[in-house]
Amino acid sequence: MKYLLRIRYVGTDFFGFQVQRTGRTVQGELHAAAEKLFGCPCLITGCSRTDSGVHAEEFYLTLEPTLPSAAAIPPRALPAAMLPYLPHDLGITLSLKAPEGFHPRYDALGKEYRYLMRFGYPPDPFFTARAWQMPYRLTEEGFARMRRAAAYFIGTHDFTSCMCTESEIEDRVRTITALDLTQEGALVTLSVTGNGFLYNMVRIITGTLFEVGVGRREADSIPAILAARDRTAAGMTAPPDGLYLHRVFYSQNFGSVTE
Amino acid sequence: MKYLLRIRYVGTDFFGFQVQRTGRTVQGELHAAAEKLFGCPCLITGCSRTDSGVHAEEFYLTLEPTLPSAAAIPPRALPAAMLPYLPHDLGITLSLKAPEGFHPRYDALGKEYRYLMRFGYPPDPFFTARAWQMPYRLTEEGFARMRRAAAYFIGTHDFTSCMCTESEIEDRVRTITALDLTQEGALVTLSVTGNGFLYNMVRIITGTLFEVGVGRREADSIPAILAARDRTAAGMTAPPDGLYLHRVFYSQNFGSVTE
Repeated sequence: MKYLLRIRYVGTDFFGFQVQRTGRTVQGELHAAAEKLFGCPCLITGCSRTDSGVHAEEFYLTLEPTLPSAAAIPPRALPAAMLPYLPHDLGITLSLKAPEGFHPRYDALGKEYRYLMRFGYPPDPFFTARAWQMPYRLTEEGFARMRRAAAYFIGTHDFTSCMCTESEIEDRVRTITALDLTQEGALVTLSVTGNGFLYNMVRIITGTLFEVGVGRREADSIPAILAARDRTAAGMTAPPDGLYLHRVFYSQNFGSVTE
Repeated sequence: MKYLLRIRYVGTDFFGFQVQRTGRTVQGELHAAAEKLFGCPCLITGCSRTDSGVHAEEFYLTLEPTLPSAAAIPPRALPAAMLPYLPHDLGITLSLKAPEGFHPRYDALGKEYRYLMRFGYPPDPFFTARAWQMPYRLTEEGFARMRRAAAYFIGTHDFTSCMCTESEIEDRVRTITALDLTQEGALVTLSVTGNGFLYNMVRIITGTLFEVGVGRREADSIPAILAARDRTAAGMTAPPDGLYLHRVFYSQNFGSVTE
């Protein structure tokens, strides 16, 4: 039996999703929990790598015990059965039998990320590691500039300027279908939806928009940044603290959170 | 110079506000930070004890360096000056010269606590240690029963039944001026305002209302619980995770959070 799971996790104490040589990872915790539950090692394939410290409100993966002797657990029963083996910063919100041939990464049509910024001083301890907290005041004009700048990222572009230079990927053309900014008091939430994202792309877009907001860059400088195809043309990389993988889109709708 | 500070903290990693023989406390962290800043020990008096794991969105204290050689720091400058010495789960949101004779505990006219409950399964990792997460569904009728039961606590009562038996306080009469419950999806927020609260009083009221909500007690059983003046008549003590000291009321208004 191959399971399709939807999970959510607080990224703060994880070195990202994917198993690393050292460090606590989401996949590593799931491997350990699943082995205890099924009595054998399991194959786990995620929809995305997420970086150290990045959160996921919705993350899909497949999980498949490697031995025919594995415990026979009905998919609906898996979240409750695995709960005792899971840490408190990781939860399973959906479990189904994986559709035939389903691949959580290749079948994803797109993703929505959210980035939470908090403008204000002093930092709020309740947002430690859950938002990017900045000792700046965001003026009404600054927020309007951020929104104007954000619109330039929408569409199909070569996003080389917004990719971490450590990445070796060749095709840097991606489509952003929506990029919204909303403000509520000191909090600014960026929501960005696209068919795919390069390494650190959301964090570099966020860092660049932040610089526009506090007056270090012009809103109308974005087209030139994109045209440069040069990482140094764009702004800083925002820290992982405020980044949330919010939704992953598939051709099927897998329903809402299990009750 | 005696400072009046307003702070906020995430209670999870603190053994409460007050310095203990062992364990990390809010007061202990403030003592250490203030001594580094002022170059001498400081006297710190808080508006309340809070228990291990309980959060504070607003907590008032006075801080006074014990030596005349203490660094001369203007009150407005204190939050920024002390920030480098504070941990990430504790922040200062206001600093003033304390009014003559001001005492943060004796001068408090009342307090508002909030208690956050999450009804649903599985638990949400983003609410770990920030809400009481319960694997129950709260029906519309259950929520209505909780609201009806809550109204019985409003007013002046002997709250012996809602006091932890470890407390040795003699006068158990307190006045609750408001007790509201609101629901938003899986989250239920209890807000309770009163002139004073006995040890564990909010957590015992919450635990009792929870039992009413899930059908273990009748809403109309509350008057008999209060009349019994016996801790065993009331419900369980809700865990500290969901409890927030939300506001403290004084005859003066100390203004809003510093920018």
